[in-house]
Amino acid sequence: MSSYADRLAALREQLKSEKLDGFVVPLTDEHMSEYVGSYAQRLQWLTGFKGSAGSAVVLPEQAAIFVDGRYTLQVRQQVSADDWSYQSVPETSVADWLKDHAPKGARIGYDPWLHTRDWVKKAKEALASRGAELVPVGENPIDKIWIDRPEASKAKLVVQPDNYAGKGAAEKRTDIAEWLEKHDADAAVLSALDSIAWAFNVRGQDVTHTPVALAYAIVNKDGTADLFVADEKVGPDVRQHLGNGVRLHDRYAFEGALSGFKDKTVAVDPERAVSAIFDALDKAGAKILPLRDPVVLPKALKNKVEIAGQQAAQTRDGAVIARFLHWIDEEAPKGEVDELGASDKLEGLRRENPELRDLSFDSISGAGPNGAIVHYKSSEKTNRKLETGTLYLIDSGGQYVDGTTDITRTVPIGEPTDEMRDRFTRVLKGHIAVATAVFPKGTRGTQLDSFARRPLWDAGLDYAHGTGHGVGSFLAVHEGPQRIAPVTSSQSGGDEPLQAGMIISNEPGYYKTGEYGIRIENLVLVVDVHIDGEEKEMLGFETLTFAPIDRRLIVKDMLSPKELAWLNTYHRQVLEKIGPNLTGSDRAWLEQACAPI
Amino acid sequence: MSSYADRLAALREQLKSEKLDGFVVPLTDEHMSEYVGSYAQRLQWLTGFKGSAGSAVVLPEQAAIFVDGRYTLQVRQQVSADDWSYQSVPETSVADWLKDHAPKGARIGYDPWLHTRDWVKKAKEALASRGAELVPVGENPIDKIWIDRPEASKAKLVVQPDNYAGKGAAEKRTDIAEWLEKHDADAAVLSALDSIAWAFNVRGQDVTHTPVALAYAIVNKDGTADLFVADEKVGPDVRQHLGNGVRLHDRYAFEGALSGFKDKTVAVDPERAVSAIFDALDKAGAKILPLRDPVVLPKALKNKVEIAGQQAAQTRDGAVIARFLHWIDEEAPKGEVDELGASDKLEGLRRENPELRDLSFDSISGAGPNGAIVHYKSSEKTNRKLETGTLYLIDSGGQYVDGTTDITRTVPIGEPTDEMRDRFTRVLKGHIAVATAVFPKGTRGTQLDSFARRPLWDAGLDYAHGTGHGVGSFLAVHEGPQRIAPVTSSQSGGDEPLQAGMIISNEPGYYKTGEYGIRIENLVLVVDVHIDGEEKEMLGFETLTFAPIDRRLIVKDMLSPKELAWLNTYHRQVLEKIGPNLTGSDRAWLEQACAPI
Repeated sequence: MSSYADRLAALREQLKSEKLDGFVVPLTDEHMSEYVGSYAQRLQWLTGFKGSAGSAVVLPEQAAIFVDGRYTLQVRQQVSADDWSYQSVPETSVADWLKDHAPKGARIGYDPWLHTRDWVKKAKEALASRGAELVPVGENPIDKIWIDRPEASKAKLVVQPDNYAGKGAAEKRTDIAEWLEKHDADAAVLSALDSIAWAFNVRGQDVTHTPVALAYAIVNKDGTADLFVADEKVGPDVRQHLGNGVRLHDRYAFEGALSGFKDKTVAVDPERAVSAIFDALDKAGAKILPLRDPVVLPKALKNKVEIAGQQAAQTRDGAVIARFLHWIDEEAPKGEVDELGASDKLEGLRRENPELRDLSFDSISGAGPNGAIVHYKSSEKTNRKLETGTLYLIDSGGQYVDGTTDITRTVPIGEPTDEMRDRFTRVLKGHIAVATAVFPKGTRGTQLDSFARRPLWDAGLDYAHGTGHGVGSFLAVHEGPQRIAPVTSSQSGGDEPLQAGMIISNEPGYYKTGEYGIRIENLVLVVDVHIDGEEKEMLGFETLTFAPIDRRLIVKDMLSPKELAWLNTYHRQVLEKIGPNLTGSDRAWLEQACAPI
Repeated sequence: MSSYADRLAALREQLKSEKLDGFVVPLTDEHMSEYVGSYAQRLQWLTGFKGSAGSAVVLPEQAAIFVDGRYTLQVRQQVSADDWSYQSVPETSVADWLKDHAPKGARIGYDPWLHTRDWVKKAKEALASRGAELVPVGENPIDKIWIDRPEASKAKLVVQPDNYAGKGAAEKRTDIAEWLEKHDADAAVLSALDSIAWAFNVRGQDVTHTPVALAYAIVNKDGTADLFVADEKVGPDVRQHLGNGVRLHDRYAFEGALSGFKDKTVAVDPERAVSAIFDALDKAGAKILPLRDPVVLPKALKNKVEIAGQQAAQTRDGAVIARFLHWIDEEAPKGEVDELGASDKLEGLRRENPELRDLSFDSISGAGPNGAIVHYKSSEKTNRKLETGTLYLIDSGGQYVDGTTDITRTVPIGEPTDEMRDRFTRVLKGHIAVATAVFPKGTRGTQLDSFARRPLWDAGLDYAHGTGHGVGSFLAVHEGPQRIAPVTSSQSGGDEPLQAGMIISNEPGYYKTGEYGIRIENLVLVVDVHIDGEEKEMLGFETLTFAPIDRRLIVKDMLSPKELAWLNTYHRQVLEKIGPNLTGSDRAWLEQACAPI
């Protein structure tokens, strides 16, 4: 295996041979995915950086890697300072940096299959102001020098049957066709992998933790569709499931297919579709309608079958968590449990369920100070024992065939300090403030975010992440368009009003760097609420996740009577929902963990 | 006086003679002002509409008037349905309507001194899609047919001395020059009237309730400025105050002066400067920097002298309110007090203060069901008596030479119902939730808005206005860039993070159509807050307004111990601050009104 310095040198040689002075390396795939397959891990191959978000720019004499605050330390451990300068986003951006560093007259390459059109526009403008040029490449130059690059996954598609999906794929296409009608459009391009999986009621195994398959789709106004996916991945069952309304093509035929839209009106999502798709349609002479992917909102609004599936998955998953927490209580005080051992144990318990297909994400198993690292991923190098007097934070989830779960619990190992209990109780108060909120239709998650923070603000504290993200139905554990987050970090599309049927996480936290982390996360369902004398149509939340919240960390006197009632009611429900799934000492443990305070 | 039908016909004749097929009539002036002088009341002259916001379009065969939800009823009373169709914003807009109704090939006129550049761009696009054209006019065609149009005010400018302004005008210009330096600009255009008043430490009398003078200004990077204002309005005192650094020109010389900026970089605010200013700079060959007016933020951040002035004004104003509320308590039960009589009484009490220059706005004096009309303005026609068993809402303020006030109180006439007391207590809880909020630096007002609504949401209720607006220092009673409002209604610039020194209103309410209105409004100052163990720099609010909150409307059991403590502490402070300004029975009344509950 060549060194990273060798790889960088090889890329520079390759660029030179293509008459390019530089190249931009993002961490995404042709579908603007958050998690990507190993074949698309170009940033990691080139630089050694293993974080989940970042990008790099290579120039003849300089190279820079761009990461956000979560990875400030990690990038310095994984990426050589000899070859790379470290840049922080959002303080700077690739475009800003190029503006300052690109040689005058330079030709900087980019792969149009890995960037949005908006990014290309901004980077072009930045380079133009420098007298330099942004140039699309044909084949990605990294792929030419990455000899042992993994092939794209060949995993088969599987059918997501109606008894989990709750709505047939043909009916979903009819809805999209109606949407096209409304917008006077002939066709819609779907390129987000979870949108395609949802629209066709199929799931895949191409991306770790997200059950999607690499594909593109075009839905036409007559309700038929063209699905572009590697032939070898489609078995007879899927073929039959897709039926006559769906024409199958190889994934590589997609770009060519776009050339057939001369004078047609095609809806494309500027946030989810890459620049190359726009380029191809422009070239074809199509009229582009820049609209949000028509699957995004319906996918977020879970139907009754999806909700029932989620509830079944949660009952199963809650029992796993309870057994795990019982195990921690028994084993951790003996001093031999460490982060990796604990997350392995939890994975094992989850895998006892035949409905489990995957974890929803790499478990965040953080002991003591590692719990304060919000996106911590334990490794042999960082692995810590769960020591007495510390807190242990476990954020995990399962991809069950009927629902995706995501839960965080924080537990004390031995006796917690007063400060830990104070902080935990504040986080709990914020969690309850969201769980019990009722609000008029039209309210956005951004309007609820501060409810979760106020008990921390009162003590001069806060947490540096959003309060909630949407969750898919046996799909992506992070999905939009709804979220609960401060206005400041709201992305376009982040402001979608909450609607009944949306599932969203409720996960305030508190992190004391170098000491401990606290987070309490349940998933909640947006539901209609009726109040005597109401003058508005109101919404509220129904909690979906059932597992004990650690009573040893709660300062009872800090809770209002209403908060206390919420907690005791919640624990009674936990016992009712998951108790029947537990036996023997697990059941006894749950009973004491759920006793009223 | 001609009829409105005659005026409309005359305008159509005038347009015909100018080869125009239509004309757009907004309600603003050349400074995009919220309140405008009588010379600029073209919409009212043409249509009869007396509301504070609206616009109209005249076509050969049709005419439409556009108002928002506040004026749905009023527009039908004041504007003839024979000649005008009623349109609701934001459901539709002038541009949308033109898109549907403009004759193909039509030339629709607009006055470029009365619209932003963005509006012109959108309207142009809308008309282009219709095959029609938007055409700037030279002189406004309404002015040509409005024979008895009032002249622009000739009122003199007055100096706002440093002992009220707290910072010299030369120093303010130096700050703007530094800002220009930072942005590589040669000059900044100021066209917002309150920005000019603040920057030059002058006040005017050209607009009712807002002490500003019609003027334009250009501040240059050397710290000198050009001020464009009618010569007759500038006396020797103001001339001397302005000094050598400010060149005086007639207001009408402004457009010509813009022609001198060939190849210069000029900062202009796209939200506050009209299209004509951009057109003139474009024509001159200037490079335009579209940036927010550099006065907006410093004006919002009150200095120590301005804060002390505001506090002095509040003490004075609070005593006025207390005397007024005492008078209401004595007189209303006799059955002879009506809305106009009450607001006259209040104005009379305010005018006893020699520091008063004007009211901050037309008092909202709403008895019973009129209190439920959020922007109610009483008239002989709508005037109601304050009847037993109803609520009376009074929203008012004074323009004192040292500060602008704005306060709302709601009082019961006779015995209030349980529902009234429940609603009032919920509004009070919301008010206290804002007043007591502490939050990290960087927090925006939009993040605090829901605190004010939650107690109402809990009962399925809400109010259809923002929670708080910025307030000037002897300037506009509504100023940006901060506000407390839902994300949904956030304008660009409405998202400015709160900073110490900002003054903002805290005014949740509840309105039961046809029955009563409730609002509790105090002004608050954003201040630094220190908390033991804080990990963030924190901010909070210090209440500036002191007047009793009616104890007869409070359900004690609905208040938490903290809320109760806030209320009793507030009332103790009211007594301390304004008690010394009261004597005899007023003082005795205040003591019982401020007694702890």
